[in-house]
Amino acid sequence: MLSREVADMCARAKSAGAELALAGTGQKNLALSKIAEALVKNSERILAANQADVAAARKHGTKEALVDRLALSEQRIKSSASELGEVIALQDPVGEVMEERKLASGLNLRKVRVPLGVVLMIYESRPNVTVDAAALCLKSGNAVILRGGSEAINSNRAIAETIRGAIESAGLPKDAVQLVQTTSREAVDELLGMRGFIDVVIPRGSGKLIQHVVQNSSIPAIETGEGNCHIFVDEAADLDSAKRIVINAKCQRPGVCNAVETLLVHQKIAARFLPALADDLARRKVELRCCEKAKRIIAGEKGVGVKPATERDWRTEYLGLVLAVKVVADVDEAIMHINKYGTKHSESIISADRGSISRFLSMVDAAAVYSNASTRFTDGSQFGLGMEIGISTQKLHARGPMGVRELTSYKFVVEGSGQVRD
Amino acid sequence: MLSREVADMCARAKSAGAELALAGTGQKNLALSKIAEALVKNSERILAANQADVAAARKHGTKEALVDRLALSEQRIKSSASELGEVIALQDPVGEVMEERKLASGLNLRKVRVPLGVVLMIYESRPNVTVDAAALCLKSGNAVILRGGSEAINSNRAIAETIRGAIESAGLPKDAVQLVQTTSREAVDELLGMRGFIDVVIPRGSGKLIQHVVQNSSIPAIETGEGNCHIFVDEAADLDSAKRIVINAKCQRPGVCNAVETLLVHQKIAARFLPALADDLARRKVELRCCEKAKRIIAGEKGVGVKPATERDWRTEYLGLVLAVKVVADVDEAIMHINKYGTKHSESIISADRGSISRFLSMVDAAAVYSNASTRFTDGSQFGLGMEIGISTQKLHARGPMGVRELTSYKFVVEGSGQVRD
Repeated sequence: MLSREVADMCARAKSAGAELALAGTGQKNLALSKIAEALVKNSERILAANQADVAAARKHGTKEALVDRLALSEQRIKSSASELGEVIALQDPVGEVMEERKLASGLNLRKVRVPLGVVLMIYESRPNVTVDAAALCLKSGNAVILRGGSEAINSNRAIAETIRGAIESAGLPKDAVQLVQTTSREAVDELLGMRGFIDVVIPRGSGKLIQHVVQNSSIPAIETGEGNCHIFVDEAADLDSAKRIVINAKCQRPGVCNAVETLLVHQKIAARFLPALADDLARRKVELRCCEKAKRIIAGEKGVGVKPATERDWRTEYLGLVLAVKVVADVDEAIMHINKYGTKHSESIISADRGSISRFLSMVDAAAVYSNASTRFTDGSQFGLGMEIGISTQKLHARGPMGVRELTSYKFVVEGSGQVRD
Repeated sequence: MLSREVADMCARAKSAGAELALAGTGQKNLALSKIAEALVKNSERILAANQADVAAARKHGTKEALVDRLALSEQRIKSSASELGEVIALQDPVGEVMEERKLASGLNLRKVRVPLGVVLMIYESRPNVTVDAAALCLKSGNAVILRGGSEAINSNRAIAETIRGAIESAGLPKDAVQLVQTTSREAVDELLGMRGFIDVVIPRGSGKLIQHVVQNSSIPAIETGEGNCHIFVDEAADLDSAKRIVINAKCQRPGVCNAVETLLVHQKIAARFLPALADDLARRKVELRCCEKAKRIIAGEKGVGVKPATERDWRTEYLGLVLAVKVVADVDEAIMHINKYGTKHSESIISADRGSISRFLSMVDAAAVYSNASTRFTDGSQFGLGMEIGISTQKLHARGPMGVRELTSYKFVVEGSGQVRD
């Protein structure tokens, strides 16, 4: 892609964003329902494009788990379309008056929610993210430039064309949604330099992708989705409940960012808690990577081959059936470990002790801190924000699940009758 | 400064920030009042340091206006100290419960305000910014690393040492406020790479400084303070009121970011409005840079020597007694001009026509949009936020004046009783 093409794309996005910012809720919802219709209507074409991507992925020896993330079906398209109904049902954040007051000077000040402008979304694999991101940006009045994974390029092209046609048929500018047509890395780096045209970049995917964006972007970035999450089982924990929670957080859907990756166990209950848990996890094919103490407790009693954990394990988001395990002296060591190795996503303490819970909840620095619950609840729909564009693991602008409201900024609208400053 | 020193400074800041995040309002306010006392008590030492800076500046041929920004006096120190009373009076944002609800799963979710963590503040000239930034960060529970202008290094050292001593005497970690002791550029660039240790960088000063930070930082940045502000005098304006507003916005304090830099005038009233205004501005020593039409109107009737405006003038923040003037066809041309050349700071329309006002307020993309008022009102104290750390001209995180609340993030605190995800 030439610089000129990138510049043109950004100019079109900016202009479409300015138009979309003024569009009413009714018209945006009309466009969303037309997108839903068009996705179902065009599903044959979309599936054909997707089959080309799937075939190419298999040819390149892609793991079946990843092929599954890539693959669409009649059913998946239908469910993606029906989720647009949820976006339609969301309250339109644009125009919301967040604060209003009369200033001493007699000026009337309102703080009003406005779209961010132009969003650049960089993501991997799953083509349904193309639909979700387009829908959430449209509802929040933002133009979006989509840069999906190269392995999904054919699917994304078919989906994006479908979306653009539907937006146009609703009387809104089709350039509100644009897909980067090339899969070259250079195009991404050029886009990351388009400060002034693009208001925010949201990378969603692997830690490597996120770090590349963060290090190379002059556009403000929101880091999303890297989740090296922990559960700390305290001395005062109900051990049955703790076991249920750890198993849920590890096994219910191991490939997602809010799954647990490291278990921290208080030294005083480690010997009572770990053997039975290890047994249960082994039956579920979970591989353990243990600190010395945990290894002795588990291997000593069960005789199973337990792998030792290295420094690298404490930093790893496995996204699979692997769990690092460490015995800690107390809640303070657990907090220190999490603040050192965590990615500020979701962290949970299992305890019946109010003091430990309150210490953990206030001192752990993460988007979501839990007591006595699975980390798997961190998601826009569970938290009541509706669909999410990502889960922010940084502290600026938005933290945790980001819905349509998190895709807005605000402006101060100040109306006077001739006021001048003394 | 060696990398090692930068790393140590950041580690100390992170640790102090973690401690400060848990400090109660009473203790933070105690530290603030001790800082106020100490500034007055140490004023002799601070003034001696400041005199060294002022002497060096004069020796280097610095303009007197800039020397004035740099110079402290007994009175300026006292007024800086007394402003800390305002920060003490501000509500502590930390711990505020922004939302609370019971989720379907039975989990209790609270969205709680927390400090950002570590703030890096890069600024120029005025040593009172050292006091303001330290105070606002302290109140909002953030550690701060201060990097002032090299011309104020002696003043800033004396002030920072005073502040650190006062913080320590209140039982809080003195490393909550650290001053970069060297004036080398390399130190700034090293600090801008400390993502993971520093949560946000706030550059405050010239456009050049801001652009350097934005282009070279891997830390999220908030652009503040560049103000190429406009006033548009519409066809339907009360011309007496318009004149009063333009003069106020240009002359009341020309060196600040919310002063007007370009005047846009509707073609239908230009001939009636501009001559009298030009006359008045000439008496106030304001130099005009005019488009062809404006030039003809003003020079034709008054015969004064009016300079022509170039493309560069539309982009310039003069910060002095210069005003660019352009005649436009209508409100739409005014809006287009502002969205093209403005810095998204403060923009005002003078009009009695509701249609034009509403179009301007909704379509102009800026932190503050005004009708029938001077742009000079954009400031934390006028807007009711108390003291400000800067005025954000970007859309992410915070826009417009940033007070203590804008120096916070939030976390989701989720309390359960054994919940797992289905």
